[in-house]
Amino acid sequence: MQPTTPQQACFEAGIKFGSLYHQFAGTPVSPDSSGSLETAIEEAIENQPFCESVDVDILDDELAAELAERSADYTELTGRFMEVELRVDHEGSLVVASMSMEGDYPRMRIDRIEA
Amino acid sequence: MQPTTPQQACFEAGIKFGSLYHQFAGTPVSPDSSGSLETAIEEAIENQPFCESVDVDILDDELAAELAERSADYTELTGRFMEVELRVDHEGSLVVASMSMEGDYPRMRIDRIEA
Amino acid sequence: MQPTTPQQACFEAGIKFGSLYHQFAGTPVSPDSSGSLETAIEEAIENQPFCESVDVDILDDELAAELAERSADYTELTGRFMEVELRVDHEGSLVVASMSMEGDYPRMRIDRIEA
Amino acid sequence: MQPTTPQQACFEAGIKFGSLYHQFAGTPVSPDSSGSLETAIEEAIENQPFCESVDVDILDDELAAELAERSADYTELTGRFMEVELRVDHEGSLVVASMSMEGDYPRMRIDRIEA
Repeated sequence: MQPTTPQQACFEAGIKFGSLYHQFAGTPVSPDSSGSLETAIEEAIENQPFCESVDVDILDDELAAELAERSADYTELTGRFMEVELRVDHEGSLVVASMSMEGDYPRMRIDRIEA
Repeated sequence: MQPTTPQQACFEAGIKFGSLYHQFAGTPVSPDSSGSLETAIEEAIENQPFCESVDVDILDDELAAELAERSADYTELTGRFMEVELRVDHEGSLVVASMSMEGDYPRMRIDRIEA
Repeated sequence: MQPTTPQQACFEAGIKFGSLYHQFAGTPVSPDSSGSLETAIEEAIENQPFCESVDVDILDDELAAELAERSADYTELTGRFMEVELRVDHEGSLVVASMSMEGDYPRMRIDRIEA
Repeated sequence: MQPTTPQQACFEAGIKFGSLYHQFAGTPVSPDSSGSLETAIEEAIENQPFCESVDVDILDDELAAELAERSADYTELTGRFMEVELRVDHEGSLVVASMSMEGDYPRMRIDRIEA
């Protein structure tokens, strides 16, 4: 079968999440630099087609807790340290999707679809 | 609305494509190293949930044509130099998706869905 | 032989350049988002040890020229679209290094060393 | 001062390490896929100028220990899971450098220089 418009919107939302995660995972980050990284990730991914908005929250409390246990004063960005919500609109089908930790795994999920 | 199983399969297929592209774009590549990179990309992304198979074809002819015009003997992996097909199975919904150039843009598309 | 302090400073400067380039190459970028990306790259790499400062200039004119020829309104960050200068201080040895295009190759070079 | 040849060799060795780490950190990896990833990283970075050889050892025992504690059967490549040795020859100056964990930090160091 050919994909429907809502299915294509879901595909596009997935592309944005995979892009966001694998482009920016590994970036050196600290509470001092997390604000500029949030903005840059949002504006970078919003360039992609059909992407209405991206909201990235780097979790400074989680960062601070990690750094309290480490010898360095920065760490690498990974799923434990951010929550993301994004909205994709593909020809009128809106998908709202988000990423947050589910146990030890950064779960990306579709929150809702408005066909 | 909550997503259907085929919609979730489309979302997962998108995640795989975004991951693949943004993890490996920028990798130094030449015709001599393209074979090992193809295999590593395939096996890396096949680790992700619901991913049945990934087939990456780095286009050695395109690489060679690029390198003939450059001063270096390698370049950076980008969409012009690869074609990808992948299969995702999410609770019985199979999505086959692919990436290839459409003009100057590396288009990721759903080829078919078997619900 | 064991490395001298200036040699270690050069090694550290190289690490910063390789990190910067391969972390951020491939990021979706447009003239609208280049400012936030510049800031994020600078602050991310400044987290790394011995890194005094990083100055990133994303070349909006080069971006605009590229986009005028493309079907999409963004492209991927690569060496053609940025110039970088950074300063590393390793135990009193200062290295100033920069990246800019040399023909078609993004050349990273040591500009000067103050031992 | 202008850099000496050994200093330039140290700079080049640093570039290779930063590139290697930030290109491949975040790659999905499991004991089943670590072999192909090792080879691809080695051959990718060996493309870079002055790089004689790269030897990557992904630590399957460390991976297995990590996965025994996680809900997923893969994780993301990071410094804890690999050791690297590389050799750079810049106009006759040989630098041997390596990366391994020093406490909780993936330390990159110059092992020796043969001017």
